[in-house]
Amino acid sequence: MNISTNYTRLMMATAVLSVTFATGCKPKKAESVVSGDAAQKVYVAPGKLDEVYMFASGGFSGQVAAYGLPSGRLLKVIPVFAQNPENGWGYSEETKAMLNTSHGFIPWDDAHHPQLSKTDGADDGRWLFINGNNTPRIARINLATFKTEEIIELPNSGGNHSSPYCTENTEYVVAGTRFSVPIGGNTDVPISTYKENFRGALSFVNVDQANGNMNLAFQLLVPGVDYDLVRSGKGVSHGWMFFTCYNSEQANTLLEVNASQRDKDFVMAVNWKKAEEYIKQGKGKKMPATYYHNKYDEKTHSATSNIMKEVLTLDTRELKDIVYFLPCPKSPHGADVSPDGESIVASGKLAATIPVFSFKKITEAIANKAFEGEFDAVPVIKYEAALRGEVQKPGLGPLHTEFDDKGNAYTSMFVSSEIVKWNLKTLEVVDRIPTYYSIGHLCVVGGDNKKPYGKYVIALNKITKDRYLPTGPELTQSAQLIDITGEKMSLLLDFPTIGEPHYAQACAADIILKNQKKIYNLEENHHPYAAKNEKETKITRNGNRVDVYMTAIRSHLTPDNIEGIKLGDEVYFHVTNLEQDWDVPHGFAIKGAENSELLVMPGETQTIKWTPKATGVFPFYCTDFCSALHQEMQGYARVSPAGSNVALKFGTGDAAPKNEIAKK
Amino acid sequence: MNISTNYTRLMMATAVLSVTFATGCKPKKAESVVSGDAAQKVYVAPGKLDEVYMFASGGFSGQVAAYGLPSGRLLKVIPVFAQNPENGWGYSEETKAMLNTSHGFIPWDDAHHPQLSKTDGADDGRWLFINGNNTPRIARINLATFKTEEIIELPNSGGNHSSPYCTENTEYVVAGTRFSVPIGGNTDVPISTYKENFRGALSFVNVDQANGNMNLAFQLLVPGVDYDLVRSGKGVSHGWMFFTCYNSEQANTLLEVNASQRDKDFVMAVNWKKAEEYIKQGKGKKMPATYYHNKYDEKTHSATSNIMKEVLTLDTRELKDIVYFLPCPKSPHGADVSPDGESIVASGKLAATIPVFSFKKITEAIANKAFEGEFDAVPVIKYEAALRGEVQKPGLGPLHTEFDDKGNAYTSMFVSSEIVKWNLKTLEVVDRIPTYYSIGHLCVVGGDNKKPYGKYVIALNKITKDRYLPTGPELTQSAQLIDITGEKMSLLLDFPTIGEPHYAQACAADIILKNQKKIYNLEENHHPYAAKNEKETKITRNGNRVDVYMTAIRSHLTPDNIEGIKLGDEVYFHVTNLEQDWDVPHGFAIKGAENSELLVMPGETQTIKWTPKATGVFPFYCTDFCSALHQEMQGYARVSPAGSNVALKFGTGDAAPKNEIAKK
Repeated sequence: MNISTNYTRLMMATAVLSVTFATGCKPKKAESVVSGDAAQKVYVAPGKLDEVYMFASGGFSGQVAAYGLPSGRLLKVIPVFAQNPENGWGYSEETKAMLNTSHGFIPWDDAHHPQLSKTDGADDGRWLFINGNNTPRIARINLATFKTEEIIELPNSGGNHSSPYCTENTEYVVAGTRFSVPIGGNTDVPISTYKENFRGALSFVNVDQANGNMNLAFQLLVPGVDYDLVRSGKGVSHGWMFFTCYNSEQANTLLEVNASQRDKDFVMAVNWKKAEEYIKQGKGKKMPATYYHNKYDEKTHSATSNIMKEVLTLDTRELKDIVYFLPCPKSPHGADVSPDGESIVASGKLAATIPVFSFKKITEAIANKAFEGEFDAVPVIKYEAALRGEVQKPGLGPLHTEFDDKGNAYTSMFVSSEIVKWNLKTLEVVDRIPTYYSIGHLCVVGGDNKKPYGKYVIALNKITKDRYLPTGPELTQSAQLIDITGEKMSLLLDFPTIGEPHYAQACAADIILKNQKKIYNLEENHHPYAAKNEKETKITRNGNRVDVYMTAIRSHLTPDNIEGIKLGDEVYFHVTNLEQDWDVPHGFAIKGAENSELLVMPGETQTIKWTPKATGVFPFYCTDFCSALHQEMQGYARVSPAGSNVALKFGTGDAAPKNEIAKK
Repeated sequence: MNISTNYTRLMMATAVLSVTFATGCKPKKAESVVSGDAAQKVYVAPGKLDEVYMFASGGFSGQVAAYGLPSGRLLKVIPVFAQNPENGWGYSEETKAMLNTSHGFIPWDDAHHPQLSKTDGADDGRWLFINGNNTPRIARINLATFKTEEIIELPNSGGNHSSPYCTENTEYVVAGTRFSVPIGGNTDVPISTYKENFRGALSFVNVDQANGNMNLAFQLLVPGVDYDLVRSGKGVSHGWMFFTCYNSEQANTLLEVNASQRDKDFVMAVNWKKAEEYIKQGKGKKMPATYYHNKYDEKTHSATSNIMKEVLTLDTRELKDIVYFLPCPKSPHGADVSPDGESIVASGKLAATIPVFSFKKITEAIANKAFEGEFDAVPVIKYEAALRGEVQKPGLGPLHTEFDDKGNAYTSMFVSSEIVKWNLKTLEVVDRIPTYYSIGHLCVVGGDNKKPYGKYVIALNKITKDRYLPTGPELTQSAQLIDITGEKMSLLLDFPTIGEPHYAQACAADIILKNQKKIYNLEENHHPYAAKNEKETKITRNGNRVDVYMTAIRSHLTPDNIEGIKLGDEVYFHVTNLEQDWDVPHGFAIKGAENSELLVMPGETQTIKWTPKATGVFPFYCTDFCSALHQEMQGYARVSPAGSNVALKFGTGDAAPKNEIAKK
């Protein structure tokens, strides 16, 4: 094996650190850097609210989790790309369609990069976008309801990693494939033909500013390498995106070694305003592509899937002036843009320095054609022609950079397990703090905004052993809250997270609070099977399909005695929660329900399908402890043999409501 | 409607409280009762460990969550009765069988009562049991691995609520049906024949003390009412269990009204030693019953289901001296036994007092036949003959009681939203503290032990509105930590929980720490498809089934280039994690995998099934950020049309391992 010198150095460093960890001689004792008044700084007294919302991806959990800071308390797991057996996401009849893809129903994905929608380069609290990594998709969460409203699949992609990042005003959410794949025509080609047949695709999804609806506007077809991360230009660099690229070796096997050969990989600068011009000029080419576009409608409380059949593409081999490569040492992971948009910080995870590129110099280099050559028809700008300067001796394994409100940058160092603070003007390292352990992304509050909020940096770590009470072989994931208000960073708190806290964005609570929805208005419930009051409850039969229009209100379900179900029937319980007070959900479960349970918010209708497997009497009940008489909120469904003459009916008890029973 | 006076009073009280809540005039300002040094008392500095493990059920999430106290930090969600799209539980081929039942595969249940295994009436840290409520089951979690190892279904049950509670030495875990149902013979009967045809079943599951294996020893067939909760006798009352019963009206509809008619319902005292004697005497009757018994084997890392066909029953109509009723005001929820085993505290949720029964008086009453009559052939002991005394004016809606190490009892009050502390000797109320809001269960550390640990009581609440930053209509669930070391209780912390924190048990960390497993030994991996080193990796075909024996180690998957898969194939990726260090999981995902992803612990093998839907080249990768070169830990699988002549192979790259490829 031909292992480069840098690689060897890195591996040696890693080995040293591994030994250090194993023997318990940690980088520094945690206690030594914990702020003396940390307890008071993170304590949010009962009855008080946190100052900041943090939205962390669940990584391999496929979800998003919202936390309050500085307490580190988990506010909500927002289900996105995975089923959630807590509130029915992906199980209820209404939500299943959200997980449909061109590969079928996908119950679980891997979600990496939450992205708050932006207006003028600032978090605006409207939506949160997040990528589905494994089966490439982008989701949009409505921050008024904390509910996923839309998921769009991305064709021509494999491992949707450099995704989804917003442009300065959320004109687009942008997504680059991590893995290049064969695109168009015959895709059944030998893997060893990577260099000839594999290409990357960068997707530009535009966003309807009125309602957030997404639409895949166009894709750029780009050289076949791996695209890792991306950030939008802003201010002076508005109209550009900056992607990191690794595996410029174009290896297709054992990338651990084979993709670490070259001293420099690339940052790809993308002029999306130019791409837009080409699209307007009709230069986009329609390519057949099948992908799903799923939407959840808040009025019907139901999701539907649309199947899209083509995508508009621009090929960077044919259309120039869209993309440029900047050489970047080596295997860059994060490309991050300073608040003023002038500096592009690229962190090569195997590199010894952090290059800071100048947007002004990039545009000048393009004007002057200061190119060192081309890579797959893309001009490669000379390193020095684009470089503002380098941060020297930052640490080992630089990954990601965010910014505070005082002109500082913070870079995570995976291998040396620390955050390094450096001055954005002088590029000098001014402070460093160990993290426990193996930090990946970091997050400064508003740290990618034109005007960062600052105050905290959150370390999103990969290893937690010995930081919490142990839980067998599988341990919690974890983040750390660090105070950045002073000259020196100070560690305040370790807090665990759901899934891998791959990346997070955080913003001041006010931004989200201004737009909160507390209940669904029952009057506006247009679910086709809603019973909006107890008089509308009924049971209907159509062949072997039985629909139960059921209501839930403290403390009874209507109907609560159901007879006439036969073996072989498919029974749909449509449960409408009649409550119109905040925080009064009702649940529904029936013994032997092979599909799911339900959790139904006030004003909402949700449906469970039940195919009884045996005759007998089956209890059902409310699963959310809703009142003093919650335990009494129960009922029975009787299942008779196929062909039995037991009639469809409900309400056998004296006190039960007598409602019309419709039969078809 | 005939609504009783008590019911009316309760509803009026509820209405007053609702108005109070709605207008924002809360019971007291939270701040006023927060301890002054609360911040310091709950702060666990980075690098320090919590003092106590708390295990809370997820309620309608179907899982268990482990928390650290006093910090309130979530240590781990332990998947039990529901799929977990974070670590593959219920998705991987190995774990799917754990969710099999006689009603088919059930992806989600409702879990209420975690129960730590006991030795001599003290938490021993071996296992945690938890009930599946909707589809009646009991699960056993191994506390060395925090993994669910066994799930046994309970026949003749509906809503397995009064479950699973351990006897003093975990001789049995005991489970009572919540809903009575028709049992035996023809169960397809009108719901209105409840009084004639519906009966309860109490299950006694014995536990192999060597390995925890469960076995349904026998069931008691008991009167047709609702069984709510149960606690084991201990010390003087060893050999007895105490169940609460409501709906002694035997109503089958609108229980909210119809099951609140009688002034008294029952506590059922069960002499299980007597039942054991009858079983030994051969008096048990075998009844046909189909139920599943699923076990997870740590050596093969795989679960299997056994289908059981009969259960041994004792009918309390036929065999006397097993069960007795104690009248109890009204609709009792919790029945809790004092540390010395002498006092049985029963909380009628619609009652104005809390009766405390004396075990000594109960046995004397039985000896003296101090009965007021029978209910469905069960003797009803006279109230006064069994009563030690009543706690007067405790509050509204008493539910559950636990005990501290200083002779005090703590009762949760749902309607008046408070915890009431009273002296177990004098039965006098000595303190009360508001909870936010609507407390259900409470948990004192070791609070059901013979020697409680004390120090904290945790309020497990049902309503959280305005306690945390809001998250749309669906809010977090929540618990509160209260210091009980002083004369007055003092509130320390609000902390959110996953699912409904229905009930929790907590114990000193030492009890769990002494027995922790950090990795699975690769040498002891007996998974049939394990590749224990890279030389054992291979791909085999048998018809349209393709098995990939894959390994994962920092930072590559072997094989990483797979060709020869055809449309129509079912591909099984068996991924063995070769790591033998703590906290180095690897993940696995492949684009379009309709079944799942995987998360694989060190030394473990887990399997994902993949049925490709299209031809082309599909990336796969490690989903758990495992090293500096994690992003390079990727590969490709090529899918060709059915009938294509592309051969099955892997390792196309120069640096890829050359392994034997077996074909069948």
